[in-house]
Amino acid sequence: MDNENTLRRLKTVEGHLRGVIRMVEEDTYCIDVIRQIQAIDAALNKVSTQILENHLNSCVITAIQGTDKKERQRVLKEITEVFEMSNKV
Amino acid sequence: MDNENTLRRLKTVEGHLRGVIRMVEEDTYCIDVIRQIQAIDAALNKVSTQILENHLNSCVITAIQGTDKKERQRVLKEITEVFEMSNKV
Amino acid sequence: MDNENTLRRLKTVEGHLRGVIRMVEEDTYCIDVIRQIQAIDAALNKVSTQILENHLNSCVITAIQGTDKKERQRVLKEITEVFEMSNKV
Amino acid sequence: MDNENTLRRLKTVEGHLRGVIRMVEEDTYCIDVIRQIQAIDAALNKVSTQILENHLNSCVITAIQGTDKKERQRVLKEITEVFEMSNKV
Repeated sequence: MDNENTLRRLKTVEGHLRGVIRMVEEDTYCIDVIRQIQAIDAALNKVSTQILENHLNSCVITAIQGTDKKERQRVLKEITEVFEMSNKV
Repeated sequence: MDNENTLRRLKTVEGHLRGVIRMVEEDTYCIDVIRQIQAIDAALNKVSTQILENHLNSCVITAIQGTDKKERQRVLKEITEVFEMSNKV
Repeated sequence: MDNENTLRRLKTVEGHLRGVIRMVEEDTYCIDVIRQIQAIDAALNKVSTQILENHLNSCVITAIQGTDKKERQRVLKEITEVFEMSNKV
Repeated sequence: MDNENTLRRLKTVEGHLRGVIRMVEEDTYCIDVIRQIQAIDAALNKVSTQILENHLNSCVITAIQGTDKKERQRVLKEITEVFEMSNKV
């Protein structure tokens, strides 16, 4: 099941984030903290990509093959929106 | 025609980029140059989003409603790939 | 103390991330999960910026005003590196 | 002189961008156009990083070693700002 994989990755990110919190508590060198936050960012991007892939291969196929044109438009618009946002964060 | 809109935006970006080249030639303050480059980045992201939107509403619909399963997989994989890359640039 | 502010933000992000994990466990709609992950990304970027600001106003000033040229080069190189990476994640 | 290097890179990007404009004029496959735009983004990020590096090793050192505290604050604030923006574009 794909959710399992997503969950496992998110829990790894959670552990990573807790490590960063400890680093700040222990006054670790700023640049090292920033680098770890950037690593978390990269890991989250991978999770998003994986979720999008699952979404395309399930909901999107169903919506596009379906007869409800509005639903089709909605689903495609959402993909455009998350793509646009991904360029910004 | 949608290409017209994309072309117009890209030509605006081209003018913007030429302006940045002039700024560097005239030894403009570094930070101002960086800010203009970031503005170009943002404009290019908008162009990409617009192209993706057109693509979803044409090729992707056709591929997903078509009978060629491999083609469908290919088209969806491409979207995942440009999404993943958009998180990196 | 600035660490307090950074810590508070990071703990907020941790709570947000735990919320996303719950969303995945409860099979929330994919796009909504992606949007929340993008919100976490944006929050982490703010934390990084804040940490960098503190760093510039402490370690970087000390290093540049100091007499150790190698240390100065090291500190400036690190800033270039995290800037470069920030364009990628 | 470092400007030469920056200029050369920017002119390469200009050529690349003109190529993308031609691709759109010739109705090239959308995804290929998006990939080329993402490559331009990545090239621009490298130019920005190079400009920042020069800036840190000239203006920033001068400002921080100088006696004008306001100027020092201004220069450091600018770096924070372009870093923050780099996370968004």
